[in-house]
Amino acid sequence: MTSKGAFGPALFTDLYQLTMMQGYFVSGLHTQPATFDLSYRRNPYRGGYAVWAGLEPALEYLNGLRFGETDLAYLGSLGLFRPDFLSALRDWRFTGRVTAFPEGSVVFPSEPLLTVQGPLWEAQLVETALLNVLNFQTLIATKAARCLHAAQAGAHGGEIVEFGARRAQGPDGALGAARAAVIGGATGTSNVEAAARYGLRVTGTHAHAWVESFPDELSAFRAYAALYPDATTLLLDTFDTLRSGLPNALTVARELREAGHELRGVRLDSGDLAYLSAQVRAALDGAGFPDVQIIASNDLSEFVIESVIQGGGRIDVYGIGTQLATGGGEGGGALGGVYKLVALGGQDRMKLTGDPAKTSVPGTKRVWRACDSAGRLALDVVAGEQEAAPQPGERVSDPANPMRSRRVPDGLTWTDPRVTVMDAGRRTRPPETLPDLQARAHSALASLPDGTRRLLNPHAYHVSLSAALQGRRDALITDLRDRHGL
Amino acid sequence: MTSKGAFGPALFTDLYQLTMMQGYFVSGLHTQPATFDLSYRRNPYRGGYAVWAGLEPALEYLNGLRFGETDLAYLGSLGLFRPDFLSALRDWRFTGRVTAFPEGSVVFPSEPLLTVQGPLWEAQLVETALLNVLNFQTLIATKAARCLHAAQAGAHGGEIVEFGARRAQGPDGALGAARAAVIGGATGTSNVEAAARYGLRVTGTHAHAWVESFPDELSAFRAYAALYPDATTLLLDTFDTLRSGLPNALTVARELREAGHELRGVRLDSGDLAYLSAQVRAALDGAGFPDVQIIASNDLSEFVIESVIQGGGRIDVYGIGTQLATGGGEGGGALGGVYKLVALGGQDRMKLTGDPAKTSVPGTKRVWRACDSAGRLALDVVAGEQEAAPQPGERVSDPANPMRSRRVPDGLTWTDPRVTVMDAGRRTRPPETLPDLQARAHSALASLPDGTRRLLNPHAYHVSLSAALQGRRDALITDLRDRHGL
Repeated sequence: MTSKGAFGPALFTDLYQLTMMQGYFVSGLHTQPATFDLSYRRNPYRGGYAVWAGLEPALEYLNGLRFGETDLAYLGSLGLFRPDFLSALRDWRFTGRVTAFPEGSVVFPSEPLLTVQGPLWEAQLVETALLNVLNFQTLIATKAARCLHAAQAGAHGGEIVEFGARRAQGPDGALGAARAAVIGGATGTSNVEAAARYGLRVTGTHAHAWVESFPDELSAFRAYAALYPDATTLLLDTFDTLRSGLPNALTVARELREAGHELRGVRLDSGDLAYLSAQVRAALDGAGFPDVQIIASNDLSEFVIESVIQGGGRIDVYGIGTQLATGGGEGGGALGGVYKLVALGGQDRMKLTGDPAKTSVPGTKRVWRACDSAGRLALDVVAGEQEAAPQPGERVSDPANPMRSRRVPDGLTWTDPRVTVMDAGRRTRPPETLPDLQARAHSALASLPDGTRRLLNPHAYHVSLSAALQGRRDALITDLRDRHGL
Repeated sequence: MTSKGAFGPALFTDLYQLTMMQGYFVSGLHTQPATFDLSYRRNPYRGGYAVWAGLEPALEYLNGLRFGETDLAYLGSLGLFRPDFLSALRDWRFTGRVTAFPEGSVVFPSEPLLTVQGPLWEAQLVETALLNVLNFQTLIATKAARCLHAAQAGAHGGEIVEFGARRAQGPDGALGAARAAVIGGATGTSNVEAAARYGLRVTGTHAHAWVESFPDELSAFRAYAALYPDATTLLLDTFDTLRSGLPNALTVARELREAGHELRGVRLDSGDLAYLSAQVRAALDGAGFPDVQIIASNDLSEFVIESVIQGGGRIDVYGIGTQLATGGGEGGGALGGVYKLVALGGQDRMKLTGDPAKTSVPGTKRVWRACDSAGRLALDVVAGEQEAAPQPGERVSDPANPMRSRRVPDGLTWTDPRVTVMDAGRRTRPPETLPDLQARAHSALASLPDGTRRLLNPHAYHVSLSAALQGRRDALITDLRDRHGL
């Protein structure tokens, strides 16, 4: 159910990108080499990190970016654009370079996650669409990582699957959420189109309507098991989980076994999931069915999962809907990524604004990421693109407040984690598979320092600016203030 | 930037809809006449109402619903479906009847907003997609109505526009949000594709990058005004709103006037919007520019707007991004709509579950809505489909708790607000225009009782069950309990 509009990808942007493009064109600035950085200011969910996702769809977008005749006709109808500008859009392509963290990396506030370098009018137009897809998928992948972290905290482990299509924000929201949830650690989705499109494992049980369509619950369970003898998960709470659903499921489990099959699972969808899952687990184990899985649903979140486990719950699979598909919860709902001009024509650029936290960091940059001897992430330093890795003892500072500085410790191994993913408008490497991205996120999350994954009040991972970059920023602030009489 | 998948709309569903469909088919239940009701349990944002939106895209979906060969090949590859079932899907169409509140109506918890009647396997499949689009668009239209209510509370009024494409949940999320925001009262969007597709007013200013691309702010303002002499809104906060942006904007306003044009507006994007807008308004008025509009952006919500107005702010247009495009805020992020089987083969159906709030209301229904003599909404009563309008003195009960009942007052005028929008799988009337839907929502919101639109702790509008329907529900609960030994 994806919408198929008559308009091309180039119109998926804010109007001001197009009016500015025309302005650059008319002013002769449009071909000036520009650098824009995409970054965010606060981790989602008040957590300690984000899982970077959405890069592959972002590159697909850049690769296919064209103005079609329908698009140009619409723009012409607005009375804002000159014929020579519209004509120039006819052959317009994205010809820039894109440098980014590989998809599935763990990332932090204030670092350039993705950098676009190219002619000003190209790099400007793509802001809206890049932010849209990268903000959203990073939000969801991070939610999945948090939910999986909670699910695996119990003695028995646990997996998560994405069940949120009906509550997602539009069809594409559901598809994108399924993709990003898998990057963050979900092992499957209930969304058939998402599974088909992205090659995901598709999973499901049955609904209450199934049970209500038969004279009684046992007949409904039997009919489902007869049709799917090796793939049946029975929903227990249509009438009463422990007094009706559970005994009926045990009857069907025995009947399946007599016929040479095994019941796959049972699902709980209401009530006290900790208590009910412990009771159901005990009953299944007692009856000789230790391998029947318990799936839970019903407004789950990382915090609900944590509390169910702390309450003695015995759930094997958490089917997470609303909160996973929409990235809900405190500090969620949207990742506030921004995309800022940091250099033009070889000169540093920045904005000041009335809010120091929104003051940008000028200059074309690189990121240096340090690991300790155990392979744990230790520190990220944002530096100028020509700067070498930080040296032990060198002073680096907090991007939000230069008064807070620290010395670079000894014994760290530095790498530049970002890669060039597009050059001269062409992708530099083939798309990566979702299992590869999931594996990258898994090992990245495992390399986080202790406490960084804690759900509430986590350890704050440090991202610092190099002294040289901080110096350039200070100099530019002074220059801009002088120039504007401030 | 809409995704164009190879898969058709029928795969945009949860796997269990398809496994249940096959089960109904194999059991011979698939052609049984079924009734499903779509409703929600709690108003979004802890508010007093919702603005019903998404019906037109829902009907488009039902109208175009087919299984294509690519879809069938994918389903075949899962190893779950029999050839005779897949073959039956080839000619499958939605042939049901749909009854619903007109789009743009105000609606409340516990009432059937949309009812699908048709063969069981048809009415079952469509659950996921209907919930997806109706949940999302209703969430956003309601947010827009709340924001507009806040914006109009000041002495000077105010309008809202949708600026959230970069923070929306995927491209379709942005497009759907723009559409729904306009139904709820937004007067435009910055999203060019949304404007093109839905015929909306498209609006915008310029970004900080524009200012940074010129040697100084005044040159940047002049260049923009030269190109768009009748459509320039200048962003004031790139360096300092009052000390740099404002005087430079006044210079440009004077220069435009000398050339026979007028500056359209200025935009504030950081700092104390109440203080800054009052200062900017006074300066503009003092300099002879009372018609230059003040546009504000920067993480606005209905509560921020309310506080800016209470603080003496003088803002004409609120550009609302994240919170409007994602329906964010407490009690937001998703509308928890559900879709429940309520009748099959002419018999009432329901689920009980472990949570009384999730117990469904059985039976094919109608809604009776009462207005008082002033035309204000007074009471909604959910009744059986054959029931006449409630009589004065008749007792009706709270759907969540039959202990709470009330008598129907005198002097009310009753209408059945729902209409048949699809019959035998065909739409019964042409699509409505967005201006018509916006007008319907506007007059519906104006008909709400006092206090229902209050942002916090609003007046609770009453939706009741008729005594006859409550009686049928009680009887079915007893019957189901007896049948399952509960």
